[in-house]
Amino acid sequence: MSAGWLAVVGLGPGDAALVTPQAQALLDAATDAVGYGPYLARLAPRAGLAIHASDNREELDRAAHALSMATQGRRVAVVSSGDPGVFAMASAVFEALEAGPPAWRGLDVRVAPGVTAMLAAAARAGAPLGHDFCAINLSDNLKPWETVERRLRAAATGDFAMALYNPRSLARPDGFARALDLLREACGSGRVVIFARAVSTPEEALTVTTLGEARSGMADMRTVVLVGSSLTRVVSRAGAPFVYTPRWAPA
Amino acid sequence: MSAGWLAVVGLGPGDAALVTPQAQALLDAATDAVGYGPYLARLAPRAGLAIHASDNREELDRAAHALSMATQGRRVAVVSSGDPGVFAMASAVFEALEAGPPAWRGLDVRVAPGVTAMLAAAARAGAPLGHDFCAINLSDNLKPWETVERRLRAAATGDFAMALYNPRSLARPDGFARALDLLREACGSGRVVIFARAVSTPEEALTVTTLGEARSGMADMRTVVLVGSSLTRVVSRAGAPFVYTPRWAPA
Repeated sequence: MSAGWLAVVGLGPGDAALVTPQAQALLDAATDAVGYGPYLARLAPRAGLAIHASDNREELDRAAHALSMATQGRRVAVVSSGDPGVFAMASAVFEALEAGPPAWRGLDVRVAPGVTAMLAAAARAGAPLGHDFCAINLSDNLKPWETVERRLRAAATGDFAMALYNPRSLARPDGFARALDLLREACGSGRVVIFARAVSTPEEALTVTTLGEARSGMADMRTVVLVGSSLTRVVSRAGAPFVYTPRWAPA
Repeated sequence: MSAGWLAVVGLGPGDAALVTPQAQALLDAATDAVGYGPYLARLAPRAGLAIHASDNREELDRAAHALSMATQGRRVAVVSSGDPGVFAMASAVFEALEAGPPAWRGLDVRVAPGVTAMLAAAARAGAPLGHDFCAINLSDNLKPWETVERRLRAAATGDFAMALYNPRSLARPDGFARALDLLREACGSGRVVIFARAVSTPEEALTVTTLGEARSGMADMRTVVLVGSSLTRVVSRAGAPFVYTPRWAPA
């Protein structure tokens, strides 16, 4: 095996204080950093680190490029925000690896976990994911919208709390409004909803509301939306309320 | 408001390299650390830090004690392994806060997120949670077993990948076997399963198998069990295989 390696590294939600020492050590040891431009912009530039930025839609090509560099002995960090295994680059890297030359399977490939957006958002609000929950990617770029709806219905049937990633983008203006309609019908208009934008960054904004008051325009590409279970509680106080889902469920 | 505060701090899955700088800074600033003994044992002892260990079942009492100390001006770290918002102490703290004296609502209470067990386990295996997934606590200490089964069925209906926390304890020897039976029936015996024990610690052990081969004895209190969706792939290679769930789903 060459001395090269590929590490898929999670940078956390934005704040440098949420980057793990493991992730930082891999970034410090890398010769190449590969990823979506805005994530690469979070790295401190240094001599000896080549930066390879690509568009957000080119994930498989980017992964193949990173694997190819690792076979040449480079130490390659593929960066994602949050946790790389949650709607991010790790899956694309293994998909590219499976489809690529057999030699790629012998590479030193590892994943460095991170603090994913829903956990950072939940921490800021209290503990809204404090009991069973689902994480659902609302983007229908790579799956039919029917799959999104099927999963939202299943999550509502199971009375899970939910974390909704990628609720809305310019290319998909309508899906999130339909998702809110579906959830209102399945869960009732009183259900707690949290819009958490850019948590842990200077642009952070949190809104605690209900499905009845939620509107699709409250979310953008940098928002993760948390939906409570039927048991989720809002604890009012001076300032932003605390939101939590109890550890228990009644018989 | 007093100068006291309460921070619910996630220590990650075990490796010190997975403790965020934010969590470490809160631990360094605390006057008191409260939690389950084995988690407190992970802290470096130092002058000025009082350690308050309690049993794992006494979460509400522990939370109330921590809140009470914060009102007295102490800087209290309530520690959990993993992420404190995922089947850990954050929910208990807010439940105690809601039930307690009104003055507690004015306290400076914050949650420091962490790398939860399922994300550390997924990273070690590849990217098995690379698409929509559910996190389900199999313990029926605080909820009826029927709720566990309802959620497993809903997760299977939605074709989610799943992370199963607390699969098995001495007090509940049978539940996990029933869960495996239910999942075999709902998902088929070929479905990928990963038993991930004590990830990132010296006792780490990973087993990749199928529902057909999975046995309840493969899990213990330190295991998180990951179940793939219908699309989850196993990439064979010399050594442990990579497991990933694709980012896409067919129409």
